Amino acid sequence: MARKPRSVDLTQVTEWDDGKIRRKEDYLAAEEPLEIRIGDDPLSVTMRTPGHDLELAAGFLFTEGLVQRRAQIITLEEDAGAAGENRGNVVLAKLAPEAAPDFEKMRRHFFAASSCGICGKASIDSVRARTLVPPNPDFRLDPEVLVRLPEMLRASQAVFGRTGGLHAAALFDGAGELLVMREDIGRHNAVDKVIGWALLEERVPLGNTILLVSGRGGFEIVQKAIVAGLPVVASVSAPSSLAVQLARELGQTLIGFLRGRRFVVYAGDERVGKT
Amino acid sequence: MARKPRSVDLTQVTEWDDGKIRRKEDYLAAEEPLEIRIGDDPLSVTMRTPGHDLELAAGFLFTEGLVQRRAQIITLEEDAGAAGENRGNVVLAKLAPEAAPDFEKMRRHFFAASSCGICGKASIDSVRARTLVPPNPDFRLDPEVLVRLPEMLRASQAVFGRTGGLHAAALFDGAGELLVMREDIGRHNAVDKVIGWALLEERVPLGNTILLVSGRGGFEIVQKAIVAGLPVVASVSAPSSLAVQLARELGQTLIGFLRGRRFVVYAGDERVGKT
Repeated sequence: MARKPRSVDLTQVTEWDDGKIRRKEDYLAAEEPLEIRIGDDPLSVTMRTPGHDLELAAGFLFTEGLVQRRAQIITLEEDAGAAGENRGNVVLAKLAPEAAPDFEKMRRHFFAASSCGICGKASIDSVRARTLVPPNPDFRLDPEVLVRLPEMLRASQAVFGRTGGLHAAALFDGAGELLVMREDIGRHNAVDKVIGWALLEERVPLGNTILLVSGRGGFEIVQKAIVAGLPVVASVSAPSSLAVQLARELGQTLIGFLRGRRFVVYAGDERVGKT
Repeated sequence: MARKPRSVDLTQVTEWDDGKIRRKEDYLAAEEPLEIRIGDDPLSVTMRTPGHDLELAAGFLFTEGLVQRRAQIITLEEDAGAAGENRGNVVLAKLAPEAAPDFEKMRRHFFAASSCGICGKASIDSVRARTLVPPNPDFRLDPEVLVRLPEMLRASQAVFGRTGGLHAAALFDGAGELLVMREDIGRHNAVDKVIGWALLEERVPLGNTILLVSGRGGFEIVQKAIVAGLPVVASVSAPSSLAVQLARELGQTLIGFLRGRRFVVYAGDERVGKT
């Protein structure tokens, strides 16, 4: 497996269709480990769909609280020396001295420090403990703009949508213009990719921007969006109770079941209205 | 939050429906951290939907390789002394001496030891390194049985399905009889719950059983199913490339896009045919 990892793989499958059996080729969303290293120390390994790996790493470093701004990432590059199965699956980061993680401390508190946003940052307290600024209270969300976004997300997904196995995340401005869309087999990775794009473009905090995700709006999505200053998170499915609780506490507008000309506002409905 | 955690929460939301705005009550899938402790040592924290927590803990201990059989779990109980936010969110396990984890070693290798199945067991190599027996080669899967399963899963989900935010996992026997169904906001937790149920019922290895999951069949689902000896994993959506690779290497039948009277066999098609 010394090839460069791709986002989509082609493979032989067997289709059973009402009793008829045939062999055919089918696309699969690729899933491979990406290791992020700070200097010589491995920071994390995440299963991701290859592509936009530097954005993913930048977004991860930012939304997990290792860096607060673009300038703290001195260099960020694919490890050209990685060979074999690691080829294309290692990103090297050099951080400003004040941002470099205390690996010794992380080892002592390894459960709390584990950094996937699902198992590690498992406690809402660990999010509350961070200094988070409530997102832009002056942003106004036009419902007529909002209801157009899912179709724009789907249209932008056309190439990968064929595998049926990818989550998408996209940033839109208040007028409904698509800024960036990224896909990944992990929803939180797709979110890290779009936020990482914004960080590298020096666009954070994203105080006038809407984050739309496919699937549901979970706790870790709200948490990452809060860090990026996003005033609105919308999804086409249901949020979890903890996502709603966190959005309410931290002043974020959280929208679910955005389908057709209907949506449900779970938190921050004061932002919803004509701009 | 000193209450006992529930699986579903009721909350006030604002609905926008083609310009009409109304306040109403809505159900949310609950998401709270569950901590598993071995003796006095915290082993892991996972975000889960409360309910069937002992099954979840048993399944986690088993599929993550800490125990190989039921008898190695000496006791497994809710921590009755946990107070405040922890109430109902801590499970205490006492394991047989040979199964007790080496916490000192885990601390030294904390990245590899992190145990959510997404970030920690990030490398396919770490799965290959475990002694895994290929699942029952003699199991035969009847397509006419298989195509009935998604509707049975949906029917058994009726109570929670109203939140739209839960994943489901179910075990069926070869004749298509539902053995157990569990739901969770995390797909891997739903799988751990059904496998934990089987472990506690002393039904593993599950050599004549089909695992059906809502959503996609990812790497961590295949990995957990292999540990439980499941010969067939089916899902209604797409598997990932790594899930297919692992199923092929380890001799598991992996089925995707199980919808209506059609499905796609990604691995192990020799098991598909009349029984």
